[in-house]
Amino acid sequence: MAARMKAAVFVGPGRIVLDEKPVPDVGPLDALVRITTTTICGTDIHILKGEYPVASGLTIGHEPVGVIEKLGSAVKGYREGQRVIAGAITPSGYSYASLAGDHAQDGAGTAHGWKPVGGWKLGHIIDGCQAEFVRVPDAMANLAPIPDGLTDEEVLMCPDIMSTGLAGAESGAIKVGDTVAVFAQGPIGLCATVGARLMGATTIIATDMLPERLDMARRLGADHAIDSAKVDPVAEIMRLTDGRGVDVAIEALGLQATFEAALRVLRPGGTLSSLGVYSKDLTVPLGPIAAGLGDHRIITTLCPGGKERMRRMLNVINSGRADLKPLVTHRFKLDDIEAAYDLFGHQRDGVLKVAITP
Amino acid sequence: MAARMKAAVFVGPGRIVLDEKPVPDVGPLDALVRITTTTICGTDIHILKGEYPVASGLTIGHEPVGVIEKLGSAVKGYREGQRVIAGAITPSGYSYASLAGDHAQDGAGTAHGWKPVGGWKLGHIIDGCQAEFVRVPDAMANLAPIPDGLTDEEVLMCPDIMSTGLAGAESGAIKVGDTVAVFAQGPIGLCATVGARLMGATTIIATDMLPERLDMARRLGADHAIDSAKVDPVAEIMRLTDGRGVDVAIEALGLQATFEAALRVLRPGGTLSSLGVYSKDLTVPLGPIAAGLGDHRIITTLCPGGKERMRRMLNVINSGRADLKPLVTHRFKLDDIEAAYDLFGHQRDGVLKVAITP
Amino acid sequence: MAARMKAAVFVGPGRIVLDEKPVPDVGPLDALVRITTTTICGTDIHILKGEYPVASGLTIGHEPVGVIEKLGSAVKGYREGQRVIAGAITPSGYSYASLAGDHAQDGAGTAHGWKPVGGWKLGHIIDGCQAEFVRVPDAMANLAPIPDGLTDEEVLMCPDIMSTGLAGAESGAIKVGDTVAVFAQGPIGLCATVGARLMGATTIIATDMLPERLDMARRLGADHAIDSAKVDPVAEIMRLTDGRGVDVAIEALGLQATFEAALRVLRPGGTLSSLGVYSKDLTVPLGPIAAGLGDHRIITTLCPGGKERMRRMLNVINSGRADLKPLVTHRFKLDDIEAAYDLFGHQRDGVLKVAITP
Amino acid sequence: MAARMKAAVFVGPGRIVLDEKPVPDVGPLDALVRITTTTICGTDIHILKGEYPVASGLTIGHEPVGVIEKLGSAVKGYREGQRVIAGAITPSGYSYASLAGDHAQDGAGTAHGWKPVGGWKLGHIIDGCQAEFVRVPDAMANLAPIPDGLTDEEVLMCPDIMSTGLAGAESGAIKVGDTVAVFAQGPIGLCATVGARLMGATTIIATDMLPERLDMARRLGADHAIDSAKVDPVAEIMRLTDGRGVDVAIEALGLQATFEAALRVLRPGGTLSSLGVYSKDLTVPLGPIAAGLGDHRIITTLCPGGKERMRRMLNVINSGRADLKPLVTHRFKLDDIEAAYDLFGHQRDGVLKVAITP
Repeated sequence: MAARMKAAVFVGPGRIVLDEKPVPDVGPLDALVRITTTTICGTDIHILKGEYPVASGLTIGHEPVGVIEKLGSAVKGYREGQRVIAGAITPSGYSYASLAGDHAQDGAGTAHGWKPVGGWKLGHIIDGCQAEFVRVPDAMANLAPIPDGLTDEEVLMCPDIMSTGLAGAESGAIKVGDTVAVFAQGPIGLCATVGARLMGATTIIATDMLPERLDMARRLGADHAIDSAKVDPVAEIMRLTDGRGVDVAIEALGLQATFEAALRVLRPGGTLSSLGVYSKDLTVPLGPIAAGLGDHRIITTLCPGGKERMRRMLNVINSGRADLKPLVTHRFKLDDIEAAYDLFGHQRDGVLKVAITP
Repeated sequence: MAARMKAAVFVGPGRIVLDEKPVPDVGPLDALVRITTTTICGTDIHILKGEYPVASGLTIGHEPVGVIEKLGSAVKGYREGQRVIAGAITPSGYSYASLAGDHAQDGAGTAHGWKPVGGWKLGHIIDGCQAEFVRVPDAMANLAPIPDGLTDEEVLMCPDIMSTGLAGAESGAIKVGDTVAVFAQGPIGLCATVGARLMGATTIIATDMLPERLDMARRLGADHAIDSAKVDPVAEIMRLTDGRGVDVAIEALGLQATFEAALRVLRPGGTLSSLGVYSKDLTVPLGPIAAGLGDHRIITTLCPGGKERMRRMLNVINSGRADLKPLVTHRFKLDDIEAAYDLFGHQRDGVLKVAITP
Repeated sequence: MAARMKAAVFVGPGRIVLDEKPVPDVGPLDALVRITTTTICGTDIHILKGEYPVASGLTIGHEPVGVIEKLGSAVKGYREGQRVIAGAITPSGYSYASLAGDHAQDGAGTAHGWKPVGGWKLGHIIDGCQAEFVRVPDAMANLAPIPDGLTDEEVLMCPDIMSTGLAGAESGAIKVGDTVAVFAQGPIGLCATVGARLMGATTIIATDMLPERLDMARRLGADHAIDSAKVDPVAEIMRLTDGRGVDVAIEALGLQATFEAALRVLRPGGTLSSLGVYSKDLTVPLGPIAAGLGDHRIITTLCPGGKERMRRMLNVINSGRADLKPLVTHRFKLDDIEAAYDLFGHQRDGVLKVAITP
Repeated sequence: MAARMKAAVFVGPGRIVLDEKPVPDVGPLDALVRITTTTICGTDIHILKGEYPVASGLTIGHEPVGVIEKLGSAVKGYREGQRVIAGAITPSGYSYASLAGDHAQDGAGTAHGWKPVGGWKLGHIIDGCQAEFVRVPDAMANLAPIPDGLTDEEVLMCPDIMSTGLAGAESGAIKVGDTVAVFAQGPIGLCATVGARLMGATTIIATDMLPERLDMARRLGADHAIDSAKVDPVAEIMRLTDGRGVDVAIEALGLQATFEAALRVLRPGGTLSSLGVYSKDLTVPLGPIAAGLGDHRIITTLCPGGKERMRRMLNVINSGRADLKPLVTHRFKLDDIEAAYDLFGHQRDGVLKVAITP
């Protein structure tokens, strides 16, 4: 009889429950990873609410930190017992999309090799990692060893929010000396603020409605923090930039209001780098894009994955260039994950990210 | 008493008339160019209709081909009598925007050096070239000598529509082997088709509703031409690409319908390169951008200008890589420019571009 | 007893002989391809001469066109009997290098995931394809189906010389309107000429010492062809460009003389794109690089591989944008491959490329 | 009678002397700047030694900090009395090169618009700024106002070494998470170290032979500092990177030894970003570039200039992202500039940069 494990399973809109499932089998290219720490993502809350469709019965979670329990027969270059992370996005490496560098749109197994959001598999298309064990597909493309001396919590942001936030800065092609605005300072927005700092932006303006998030933004590198509950962020950013606007605006919430504000503060020729997961059609107002003549760019970015990406994230942490431990504000046992969802989903108690340990 | 000249002047919505004005004075950095051929742009029709604001009394026109009549006191490197073109966009070269390479958003003289659409001066901010003479500002940055042996009509597309159309392809970062769709085959769209061809796209799909424009698209390099009056271009493009979608979609009309269709045919990770001048807010539907997770880019581009850009356009023509003479379908004397506006504005008689000669 | 096949085997410097070997076994990620056509590369001549080290006993050849004979147990998305090519470079898809897009420096299995020239495996590290059968590693990353209607000879240049030649143009970041010089018009140089044309260069200057190669260069897109046996190519190129020099110079031979000439014709800020395989240290003369102050780039490029790259090459052929069949000047049976080496190695009889059929 | 001023003048190899000259006249596009602080560059020492040719009688110096004394008749957007800097490179803005973004190779006034090192005018082609006054050409493209509150010494590195050093990092296209080696920690190398840090390199390895420079490198952001007088830097860097090599190596000295060492530590696909001014032909050894097959890039970069570049440099200083004041180790009056040359030229007394005040 197959071994059993605990797992957080999506039952239907409004219901993610802790359940028992068989420990996954491992195919030739896979690895089985024993989870030591994982976390809950804002996207999981979208799933919970039924706003982002996944199959009933699926194990949720895409931010694994753990130990290799078992390797597929064709997997080389790793050993059991090794501490690893895998990205939220686990590309095959061999699809047309992946070979072209579009790992997040990996269409392995599809007719054309491209699939929207196809690189996001864990907790989306296949069972995820809010469980005692997770099967990581295409292990050789995805498992990144954790450098000695780093704790689980220190690297817990690497698989998703750090990679996503930094990608927001990268898609903006931020240059040294740029002025950047980051709209919303949830975990992704905070990591975008960190990313802007890492890339050399010299004026970073963070907005949010929660004072503790604005404080964290300042701590992580923002030069200005605007409480958009109190002042109009567009007017304030134009004031701070003496009417010039910003080179890059990063949207990190997924709402029309922030998307539009990001457009309104862009200088001509500027870039809106969008990270949010939207729930409705977006409106692009005519004025801010100069009727189509302003040389603007709107770029959407999904979390980059694969072990090379993870290696870079780990480099950032290991070098001390960024410290993301403060984002872990709460800790739960896997047994209590339903309470963790409740806290995180309602953004109670100043929560930024929760650490879940089986 | 100052010499007088004829000029096409915007009086008010619905009224561009041939009038008489003084021949312009020339400041130290300017050149006076005697127009030998010019043309009417779709944007001029927007101005005529009152959809794009310019000052009453302004001379219209931004596509000059002519002969240097007089040089400003500080202008070096040219001689009177030289045949030249200038781009529709005439950057200063010295604004912050221009020095950063954003010539079309040139903000010379403004507080910050950036100005939306600030590089477009002729027939927009200052008097244009649908006249016997035009003053070209910052002449050293803008006058491009016409290679010997090229006729006015051969180079007439360089100042605007060729530069714009090619820029649509360039903003899409088209790579050799790409599949590209170009929505609408007016003059700009046709030049985008040419641009896609010049950059090495191997499947180029053109759409329009006018059979003669589709014919011209095929002649200029399109592999497929879709009559969107008869078939749904989105469905047809997905069929032609076996469901994969295109790498780059170029919007060349300025309507929600084409903008949205362009998004709907993009593969994940694809780029919508937008050239159209829009008159209303745009809607970005959620599905085609995968809720913000599809790694899409939407890039708007204004015609690049300056003499280096014009030099490249002239290289294309002079090398025979593209032949844009067929776009000139009608010819008028400057005296008859009101009739030319009437024909061009109503797209009668298969008109693509008109040549206007003083 | 294992089936046997014929194969061209490197014995030692000066000796590549037709031999008999077992048909290769297939591991879980591999495919066995029955070769229908292959060819000999200039690099194979380097191997033959002992200038580029490979193990004694290795089957040579890295340009396979064939039919899938057998698929590894973990390979999905293909069927036996399918006509395919694979690139000269067969990346794993899952090494750090490959995931970073540096497929040609694939270091799968090495400590760090990067290995110089590690992506070139066939006929270099593992048995190649001048044989009746070849084992293609990491089949899902490498097998590219041949579009219906294309013959073997039409696609025979895709695996190596077309991909390499085009990459020479791509590494030069050629822009529409550029002036480009291509030094030497062997098969790679001719494909670089084609690549420059595909990317929109408007003045392409080809050099060689053989009149028939200069003729072929003109046929494939060169605007000027310089016989460097008769005139100094540097002086001639500077004359043709009125003293300005070229934007991009492509070196396609692998000698100091062509490397240096390429530097000497570069404009300030220009790019030397180097494709040659060199046999000696190179000298960079001080003058042409303005003592290090000229903003020059020297970029070396190895043939890009992987199925996505091959898909693009096939797109170019299938669309008719380039016709490389004329490069096949001679045909041999595999049984006569030693004669083919003799002809090709001594560049007799106007040979460009030979087609070898088992 | 014209006003007279003091100026450091190149007389001939080995002789730069303080002399008296007329205060420069100002043409319509120029500005006269009264120097408040300037400095001596390593390139000035090359000039002094006769290794880099300039005309006898020329005023030396290209790093001006000062106050606008007088504006040319066509210059707008500035006021007399304004504190400004100009870059070492003063592009016209209107040459073909400048319009293409190659400001440092500005060929204004030449036949083709490109000129090697043509953007470097001050103290090279025209009189420089080691004087009481300097004429800045094309003032509107070059004068950058100093933000309130910054001292002369705080911004003194902006015109040249900071812009150059950062450009070394930028030409390397350093990405967040990269490993970077910087060879030599003179003023330029130290600024390259700063640039690598600003762009997000997570392992920065600095080499030099002077302990105090290695200390400064650590202070400015290096993770490792190698005394190449004591250990072989190539071996040590390979050890530090576990045999992988670096993504980007920056050469900041101008010698074969450092150039070659930079090549030897590059990973396959890596970039050598060269800042040094060389005095002899360079040798590129075959092995480190994998016989031309290693996908390496060698990029030389001259200091970027123009007011937009200077604005970015000032942003970095003003934001506190980098503090370059510690580079000013010695201070001299203009009257004592010959002593300053003596100290700086012989690298005595731990000198990094000297501040010269008229």
